Amino acid sequence: MNHAESLAQYQAFKQQGLKLDMSRGKPAPEQLDLSLPLLDAVDGYKAADGTDTRNYGGAVGLPEARALFAEILDLPAAQVVVDGNSSLALMHDSIVFGLLYGVPGGSKPWGQQGQITFLCPVPGYDRHFAICEALGIKMINIPMSDAGPDMDLVEQLVKDDASIKGMWCVPKYSNPGGVVYSDEVVARLAAMQTAAPDFRIIWDDAYRVHHLSTEHVLVANLVDACAKAGNADRALVFASTSKITLAGAGLAALASSPANIAAWTRAVSTRTIGSDKVNQLRHVRFLKNKAGVEALMEKHRLILKPKFDVVLEQFEALLGGIEGVSWTYPKGGYFIDLLTPAGKARRTVELAKEAGITLTPAGAAFPYGKDPQDRHIRIAPSFPSLPEIKEAARGISLALRVAIGE
Amino acid sequence: MNHAESLAQYQAFKQQGLKLDMSRGKPAPEQLDLSLPLLDAVDGYKAADGTDTRNYGGAVGLPEARALFAEILDLPAAQVVVDGNSSLALMHDSIVFGLLYGVPGGSKPWGQQGQITFLCPVPGYDRHFAICEALGIKMINIPMSDAGPDMDLVEQLVKDDASIKGMWCVPKYSNPGGVVYSDEVVARLAAMQTAAPDFRIIWDDAYRVHHLSTEHVLVANLVDACAKAGNADRALVFASTSKITLAGAGLAALASSPANIAAWTRAVSTRTIGSDKVNQLRHVRFLKNKAGVEALMEKHRLILKPKFDVVLEQFEALLGGIEGVSWTYPKGGYFIDLLTPAGKARRTVELAKEAGITLTPAGAAFPYGKDPQDRHIRIAPSFPSLPEIKEAARGISLALRVAIGE
Repeated sequence: MNHAESLAQYQAFKQQGLKLDMSRGKPAPEQLDLSLPLLDAVDGYKAADGTDTRNYGGAVGLPEARALFAEILDLPAAQVVVDGNSSLALMHDSIVFGLLYGVPGGSKPWGQQGQITFLCPVPGYDRHFAICEALGIKMINIPMSDAGPDMDLVEQLVKDDASIKGMWCVPKYSNPGGVVYSDEVVARLAAMQTAAPDFRIIWDDAYRVHHLSTEHVLVANLVDACAKAGNADRALVFASTSKITLAGAGLAALASSPANIAAWTRAVSTRTIGSDKVNQLRHVRFLKNKAGVEALMEKHRLILKPKFDVVLEQFEALLGGIEGVSWTYPKGGYFIDLLTPAGKARRTVELAKEAGITLTPAGAAFPYGKDPQDRHIRIAPSFPSLPEIKEAARGISLALRVAIGE
Repeated sequence: MNHAESLAQYQAFKQQGLKLDMSRGKPAPEQLDLSLPLLDAVDGYKAADGTDTRNYGGAVGLPEARALFAEILDLPAAQVVVDGNSSLALMHDSIVFGLLYGVPGGSKPWGQQGQITFLCPVPGYDRHFAICEALGIKMINIPMSDAGPDMDLVEQLVKDDASIKGMWCVPKYSNPGGVVYSDEVVARLAAMQTAAPDFRIIWDDAYRVHHLSTEHVLVANLVDACAKAGNADRALVFASTSKITLAGAGLAALASSPANIAAWTRAVSTRTIGSDKVNQLRHVRFLKNKAGVEALMEKHRLILKPKFDVVLEQFEALLGGIEGVSWTYPKGGYFIDLLTPAGKARRTVELAKEAGITLTPAGAAFPYGKDPQDRHIRIAPSFPSLPEIKEAARGISLALRVAIGE
């Protein structure tokens, strides 16, 4: 298909007047249906220890909810807190508490140490970078390989620069590249020397049980690795049930060292008298345990896998063999990263938009929204229906062909 | 009854080995039972505008939840956000956002303006003061009259001192004094000149519909008053359903000027993708509207009123006529403020503790936990059963008599 043909097909596609939103990694309605029994899972509101979940209290979460996340995260329940419905909020608040109060091991609050910096493996999650941007935290891009961030560069930067207080990581099925951190990367992150005594890794384990293949990829336990390396307080691990049960009405958890959990508990106890324990009890009764979570995630997989496959098929059919174009084949998570020739991502997103397909803005996966080479497009196939996704993938492919030909 | 007789009765009381907790204003189980249908109030999860409440989104709340609070707070829904389960968390975050980002009308974040100060009408709510203490915000005590804070003093302080950025207020049935702010106080708060252009009133309307008498006391609308006085952005109003439906699983709301709501929306959209909209929908379906809330609050009143009455009866019988001893007769809210002769509150709480009655620590109602005259004891009659409360009130009275006689 030459440029004229691509253009003709693109124009025909546009004429359909479709309206498809592939901009965010939202679960589809049929995935949310899987957890509808959750809404009726509480009859009786007493926790195992007799706590009346309807009343005040419990800033660190119900014991059985902490135990559930502890089993999933492979850490002791005493090192896990369950709070609210949003792991993003827990990450945000961890950084805010670092700015205002400092973190264990630091001599002063981050906010009193002049300009501070976070390392940002790219492409990454736009909402992570938005937190840093809002809070005035400088961001440094770190290139990613198939095994995780460029550790030579990371080690070199953190060794010399005490202003580097943090690093964002999505260690499994990363957003958007689908990267899985190797054991070596985890070991080096845990053991590396940092100039800052108050350095933290924000370990967003968003896709820990979100497999797309039957292979259940494992990532090494960062909290354990940090403890063994003598850097016990380095890791802050975050997870949620947003993409397990209900995206807007799930549970979020933070896991870390005993010292970090104590500092968190102190700070959060000033903020609130406790989060929604009724919803925690509902979740425990519905999910039961790790095996229950895994059984549910297999049902999600059966819904999601065909959606990813249909995108990949369209890309192969319409974009295969074009120089400078490639895409990821994720083993889990919610995204495909489509790489265009340099300077073509923004234009492709624009053309797709004109044809009725809303994509995440080009550049969103980079700090300050700037993809230096303008190459990455994040594809989120989860929400639309299968026929819609097939059409959208075709439209995106045509848009990219047209962009290249221009 | 002389000191020897008081002591003998106190010792006999102590022998009973009771264990009663009157330290916090927690709803009783029978109050929480009133809202049990709430837990089943969602079948079907679509909001009125078709929003799937189970999915991501909606950082400012479901339209119908905003409308519900708007009706209760007598403000436009566009000036109300519903978020999370804790108004304390919204107050905390409002102050944190002020420290980190500043507020509309300010030239710099509060955190970049050196030492800042909040005015604290006393006695007041310990958790308010704990937020300031944790965040390093200096607190100045403001004496209260029956009509609200000493406005001559407030006006004088804020006029000259630009470091004063905020003031805590519980305008109706205040915690713990049961004070209702007069129209004049509200008008003066709205109109007073402040040296700081970025001054805020934290208006914790915690007991707005929490009447103990059949008289439904009204307090003037601060947001309207501020707008009329040309200080539209001065008021931040907070409310929740914690003591309406379920203390740990209710809804919280913030209401303010359009500029403040826009600033809040920006800041909170960085923090989270949205709060639990399923719970918001549950609440709207269960409470329906302001009339529904008022009908429910009348049922609460019928549970709470006898508990307050029995305390007041015991105080009258055992403490009536003792010099320097008095107590409040609240028309609403959750507390009675028991005043002892100077220097006797701490000792009374200690003696009550020895007799098995846990009270809020003496001094808790003051910044830094320091009641300058050691006179106030906060009595929280809501949680225990009626017979327990009668016993507790008797024990407290005896403890105070013994403390006075020592």
